[in-house]
Amino acid sequence: MGNAALGEPEETTAGIVIIGDEVLSGKVRDVNSPFLLKELYRQGVRAQRVVTIPDDVDVIAGEVRSASERFDFVLTSGGVGPTHDDLTFQGVAEAFGVPLHEDPTLSALLLRHFEDRLTQAARRMALVPVGTRLVQAGDTRFPLCVVRNVYVFPGVPEILKAKFEAVRQEFRGRPFHQVRVYTWQNETTLAACLEQTLDRFPGLAIGSYPTFDKREYRVMLTLESRDRQRLEEARDALLGLIDPAQIVRVEEPERAGAGPTGS
Amino acid sequence: MGNAALGEPEETTAGIVIIGDEVLSGKVRDVNSPFLLKELYRQGVRAQRVVTIPDDVDVIAGEVRSASERFDFVLTSGGVGPTHDDLTFQGVAEAFGVPLHEDPTLSALLLRHFEDRLTQAARRMALVPVGTRLVQAGDTRFPLCVVRNVYVFPGVPEILKAKFEAVRQEFRGRPFHQVRVYTWQNETTLAACLEQTLDRFPGLAIGSYPTFDKREYRVMLTLESRDRQRLEEARDALLGLIDPAQIVRVEEPERAGAGPTGS
Repeated sequence: MGNAALGEPEETTAGIVIIGDEVLSGKVRDVNSPFLLKELYRQGVRAQRVVTIPDDVDVIAGEVRSASERFDFVLTSGGVGPTHDDLTFQGVAEAFGVPLHEDPTLSALLLRHFEDRLTQAARRMALVPVGTRLVQAGDTRFPLCVVRNVYVFPGVPEILKAKFEAVRQEFRGRPFHQVRVYTWQNETTLAACLEQTLDRFPGLAIGSYPTFDKREYRVMLTLESRDRQRLEEARDALLGLIDPAQIVRVEEPERAGAGPTGS
Repeated sequence: MGNAALGEPEETTAGIVIIGDEVLSGKVRDVNSPFLLKELYRQGVRAQRVVTIPDDVDVIAGEVRSASERFDFVLTSGGVGPTHDDLTFQGVAEAFGVPLHEDPTLSALLLRHFEDRLTQAARRMALVPVGTRLVQAGDTRFPLCVVRNVYVFPGVPEILKAKFEAVRQEFRGRPFHQVRVYTWQNETTLAACLEQTLDRFPGLAIGSYPTFDKREYRVMLTLESRDRQRLEEARDALLGLIDPAQIVRVEEPERAGAGPTGS
């Protein structure tokens, strides 16, 4: 956010919306957002926000609308089954002020799957916002629904993963490069070195991660940028500020994950 | 939210704010919100929202302000160390429009801990919003800081847990009771039964959780209320709607977790 103005190339951004009372009550642990965060990062996309909200149409609509305006991509998870608390499509429709309609492709798939067990509740699963794009999702039973920049994933982790693979290539940002520095120096002393480095390289993403078992190192520092040359300069500047005797090792700049575009 | 009007006793609510670029980039997995969600539920407190945001003062301020207005309790995690990206106290101060000041108790503790290694960066850890209440937190090194209804936890899971125990008794809601029904019925048929039950018991929290291995049951239904008698009536109404041959077992109403007030 605003990094472009500070010397970093422009970001491709994403927001994640996890929908479900069962997550908020601690009954079901959200494993979908950790998966999506890792994969988006690999794609070079910067996730800016994850929010977990109840099964409530107005809350869903408000979050989806706001995320859709602010981020390049929005990924939702949960709330797309046949029961009374599956309200995601209603929320997305309300977010964009469009009506729901029965999608003929989805209806045909539901009819084929449920045959004579096709109830009113199951029919609800074919009601999607007008303007929904269907993406065939590998060997999953139903396609993925995309409404403008909102990708509507189911809450079941295995199905979410399969559907993510079907659209992975749509999430493209310029890949990140990362350097890691492992050191024995304590975090409070390092804080001053990091601040000086940031003064020279504004907008660079710097992280500081203390360990508490302290067997191999005390603090891991990470420097991150889409601009490899700038990253190497920042690394050299930082290493010039830390007592060399305190440095355990420095890892070479490398692509963070395997983004789709070449470095 | 609004359940009181629908026949459910009034809720005690909470919002959780997870702060840290390292979570959003998938480098560090958030284990704090799953812990806090479970524990709040045990305390009878309804978490309404979890949001994960970057290390950005304005974003922190905006989320904390909005959560503080809407929920009884706000719990934040992360961003309280000595480095440049530890901005939580600045964000909380901005949320409430109060200045930071150096707290003498925290300063003394930092001085005792760091002795002559006390740097400018470490001193920053004593800068907290005016009006901060300090809560002694077991054998953790520093007290927990509470600003109005905002509990500022560190991101390190072990320390967060220890500090939560120190204030657990401050989070009190009326405890939830829960009934579980395990069934072979498919979810689409059950959806109609659940809707009829909800028509008779508006505002009751009902969940429907399909399994995919299907060895013991196909769908677990949960009914949840603070009002045990109402819960038993709703359970009987629901069971009257499901084919008895499809019911695997029904668990007795029980306290969900071990809330602090008697049932």
